[in-house]
Amino acid sequence: MTAILLVSAPDRPGLVAAVSSWIGAHGGNIVQLEQHVDTSTRTFFLRTEWVLDGFDIAAHDIAARFAADVGDRLEMHTRVYAEGAPLRVAIFVSRQAHCLSDLLSRVEAGELRVEVPVVVSNHRELADVAHRHRINFEHIEVEATTKAAAEARQRRVLEQYGVELIVLARYMQVLSSEFVEDWSERVINIHHSFLPAFPGARPYHQAHSRGVKLVGATSHYVTADLDEGPILAQGVVPVSHRDGVAELVRKGRDVERLVLADAVRAHVERRVIVHDGRTVVFG
Amino acid sequence: MTAILLVSAPDRPGLVAAVSSWIGAHGGNIVQLEQHVDTSTRTFFLRTEWVLDGFDIAAHDIAARFAADVGDRLEMHTRVYAEGAPLRVAIFVSRQAHCLSDLLSRVEAGELRVEVPVVVSNHRELADVAHRHRINFEHIEVEATTKAAAEARQRRVLEQYGVELIVLARYMQVLSSEFVEDWSERVINIHHSFLPAFPGARPYHQAHSRGVKLVGATSHYVTADLDEGPILAQGVVPVSHRDGVAELVRKGRDVERLVLADAVRAHVERRVIVHDGRTVVFG
Amino acid sequence: MTAILLVSAPDRPGLVAAVSSWIGAHGGNIVQLEQHVDTSTRTFFLRTEWVLDGFDIAAHDIAARFAADVGDRLEMHTRVYAEGAPLRVAIFVSRQAHCLSDLLSRVEAGELRVEVPVVVSNHRELADVAHRHRINFEHIEVEATTKAAAEARQRRVLEQYGVELIVLARYMQVLSSEFVEDWSERVINIHHSFLPAFPGARPYHQAHSRGVKLVGATSHYVTADLDEGPILAQGVVPVSHRDGVAELVRKGRDVERLVLADAVRAHVERRVIVHDGRTVVFG
Amino acid sequence: MTAILLVSAPDRPGLVAAVSSWIGAHGGNIVQLEQHVDTSTRTFFLRTEWVLDGFDIAAHDIAARFAADVGDRLEMHTRVYAEGAPLRVAIFVSRQAHCLSDLLSRVEAGELRVEVPVVVSNHRELADVAHRHRINFEHIEVEATTKAAAEARQRRVLEQYGVELIVLARYMQVLSSEFVEDWSERVINIHHSFLPAFPGARPYHQAHSRGVKLVGATSHYVTADLDEGPILAQGVVPVSHRDGVAELVRKGRDVERLVLADAVRAHVERRVIVHDGRTVVFG
Repeated sequence: MTAILLVSAPDRPGLVAAVSSWIGAHGGNIVQLEQHVDTSTRTFFLRTEWVLDGFDIAAHDIAARFAADVGDRLEMHTRVYAEGAPLRVAIFVSRQAHCLSDLLSRVEAGELRVEVPVVVSNHRELADVAHRHRINFEHIEVEATTKAAAEARQRRVLEQYGVELIVLARYMQVLSSEFVEDWSERVINIHHSFLPAFPGARPYHQAHSRGVKLVGATSHYVTADLDEGPILAQGVVPVSHRDGVAELVRKGRDVERLVLADAVRAHVERRVIVHDGRTVVFG
Repeated sequence: MTAILLVSAPDRPGLVAAVSSWIGAHGGNIVQLEQHVDTSTRTFFLRTEWVLDGFDIAAHDIAARFAADVGDRLEMHTRVYAEGAPLRVAIFVSRQAHCLSDLLSRVEAGELRVEVPVVVSNHRELADVAHRHRINFEHIEVEATTKAAAEARQRRVLEQYGVELIVLARYMQVLSSEFVEDWSERVINIHHSFLPAFPGARPYHQAHSRGVKLVGATSHYVTADLDEGPILAQGVVPVSHRDGVAELVRKGRDVERLVLADAVRAHVERRVIVHDGRTVVFG
Repeated sequence: MTAILLVSAPDRPGLVAAVSSWIGAHGGNIVQLEQHVDTSTRTFFLRTEWVLDGFDIAAHDIAARFAADVGDRLEMHTRVYAEGAPLRVAIFVSRQAHCLSDLLSRVEAGELRVEVPVVVSNHRELADVAHRHRINFEHIEVEATTKAAAEARQRRVLEQYGVELIVLARYMQVLSSEFVEDWSERVINIHHSFLPAFPGARPYHQAHSRGVKLVGATSHYVTADLDEGPILAQGVVPVSHRDGVAELVRKGRDVERLVLADAVRAHVERRVIVHDGRTVVFG
Repeated sequence: MTAILLVSAPDRPGLVAAVSSWIGAHGGNIVQLEQHVDTSTRTFFLRTEWVLDGFDIAAHDIAARFAADVGDRLEMHTRVYAEGAPLRVAIFVSRQAHCLSDLLSRVEAGELRVEVPVVVSNHRELADVAHRHRINFEHIEVEATTKAAAEARQRRVLEQYGVELIVLARYMQVLSSEFVEDWSERVINIHHSFLPAFPGARPYHQAHSRGVKLVGATSHYVTADLDEGPILAQGVVPVSHRDGVAELVRKGRDVERLVLADAVRAHVERRVIVHDGRTVVFG
């Protein structure tokens, strides 16, 4: 088993040595270390992973001990992950199956180290897809007038299944600000355009009417500002005048799937740090 | 030598046969024909090219004869190109050399069948690049207060050199509506973003601050609406958190060059039809 | 309903007009026509599609009538498709699910106009995937010594289900020359490399050991020469020194799926002509 | 000014800490550190860069001191770069201008931190391109019978101009094994195919005759085994049946330029470690 440490801090000399020496001094064998300095904001970012076998601090004590020994003094903002179990993910969907099917296939193939205990939907169409994969399906209707009640039900479901990450796999409802803040950096959305082009509704229609030569998809953490959250991954595919809206939708689906899977993988592998509305996604 | 016919028309049965039979009846050997129907607007588009050797209508009469025999009856909007000489192109630049150098290298390599008699610039920096390639360089300063006078000078230069197409190769001045209308579908610009994302000034700064994972470039015909003209070509390149604005600029330059060259090639090869603010770019 | 005509012929003047006039003369409304001339072999290729409503020749007579009226005189090799029913496809698999799942998802989403009555496998692992989609699963073991018998069983299954196209979706057995010839241009394979690089077994291992910076996939019609059939589609994905064989496999899977789906779509939409070991794939 | 250290070593615990602590102990401020472990060969790779201002070891002593203090004990193979001057590069060409023009444009634009004192060619055609950029042009004819003498002349030119890196920018002659060994990991070639597909001569003709749907380019260090050297960068561009050999050549040129520039940049920025016939190219 390994531990992962994510750090952001004001840049100053000696940060890499401070981190790596501390790990080494406690018997940790570093298997991966990557750092980055954003020179425009003079901010230092680091991700490192080390083997816990032989490490002389218990997993649940690492965060506190590191903060006390190193982090606080150097004004580091840190996160430590040393859990053994796969991350528990709820997938929210509406009527379109492609992102859901794709994610579940990847989980089955062992590509994504997560467990999906539940699929949540405001429609019933995709119950069958969930059941095929032996996953619980919770139908929670969402209407303008019942939104608060629906969200309360969603929260209960999330708690009941011990969910740690929500993936909006073409879920066509807007979550409330309160919900989004409580789940900050733990809700990943896929938007079917190359943001910031074509935010909002019906981006493929917008793209067609503008006559663009590429369509794309954007996966981002959800924030209270719609389609404005920190971007995790983006992709595009070439299109032409031959492609009507239906073809843009079809071609776009392939990009949506790949981009969403990349974003979820980056999150699950603890390779993401959010800073100043942007992401550092380590390789 | 060949003639090229571009057609747009309300869709109806028999259009391909009408065109190809007329060409055949006059002794033309079709070497290329491509058509497209935009089902959303029920518009028919066609591009065909035929050998003039053996064709029994003189090149300068083709347009009128086709209209009289076929086009008018079928409400076709047509263009005919049967010129033998390379298209005469003026390249407008400001201070950045990369698109200019790239276009001139392609012309020298025989990739683009054009002649470039003149480079026009509101700055002096690139005179040397033009002169290296033995091309005239006209420095026409543009200030807010002298804009009209500057444009008058530009028009004289264009006339003097017999220019048929203007390529704005990172020319950082906005042309007047009158100028743009007079040169409708004959001014090609390269914008350094994936439009409609990041229109206006400093798109790489905007892209960096938004934290996108791809940067791009868009080449379009210039219209009176800034950055809103019909798109000819677009491209993107992946970027990451490692890339500061300077790196986005550098990576973007490679896309700008390729995209602008593609757009100019499509225009020069008479593969473009503009309809309803969008382009049909035949392959 | 529409009819599709594919033509290859020695190039000569008047071919487009000959085809389009014949269709028009019989009341057909052309909705798509694309032609191509391979100048190196002086061969003409054409694909056209027209509406059968109002066409005065019965669907099953089109091929013979066209040959008699036009094709034979102009030495055309033609194929006519005017069937109303979706193409019947058998998917052959071994142990890997990703291409199978992907194809079935696309069929369900209406992306591919085919019917999949049966999945055939030399292993049992993917029976569950087929059954989830309510598709028959035929387990036909293949051993070196029983190959002929196995192939006889496969042929019976294909006949029983009325199969018109076989897709080898990571099927790891080599088909006999006789089988391949009987099913000429009706067996599509996906090879997990950018052919002709890394033919044969374990291409991702080969790619890793060579240290390439891209891995790819190739979909082709199967011929008696292993991995040498006419290429339908290819794709690549960037990789780096960070990617071990397992990561190449994972990244490659995404390309395999897209490339195979593109190839099957091109075949199903009757956009492919094979000539001289290469394909013309109309857009 | 900064120093760069490249390390490859048998993997073992503590390597990152050993390196970063040594740098810190001598007053160095690390601005970049990236490491990689190849798990298949259990080899550790590291690149780090630190500010020399305040560092208490003189630039020319760093390599020896690091070896004595850290490297030798941990069986590290290291390289240290702390030069202030741009790398001196000779560009070898034959008749094609595109890679040469591209590299020189990038140098002028400040994209590549190198100096190009000389262009060497076995033909005279590109003298003009060199002279435009005020670079010396050495014409050294190469015939089968005079190869040894030509190489002797080349070596004198390289010495005379103080060359540290040779870039073969579509240079169509094979260098001798002796030459290649003397310049090991300091000769970069661009091959106009996606190696290992289409090695040897006329790859675009091979690609056309095979009917591939992508053409590419590969940049690699030159070794005694033709087209087998460690790969630095690769790229591809989609092509279709429409593209004859001439179009493949044209489309391929754009990839060649980008790929060669990427490879040269990686070398110049000291981001490359060769190990076991493959490269680690840090980001």
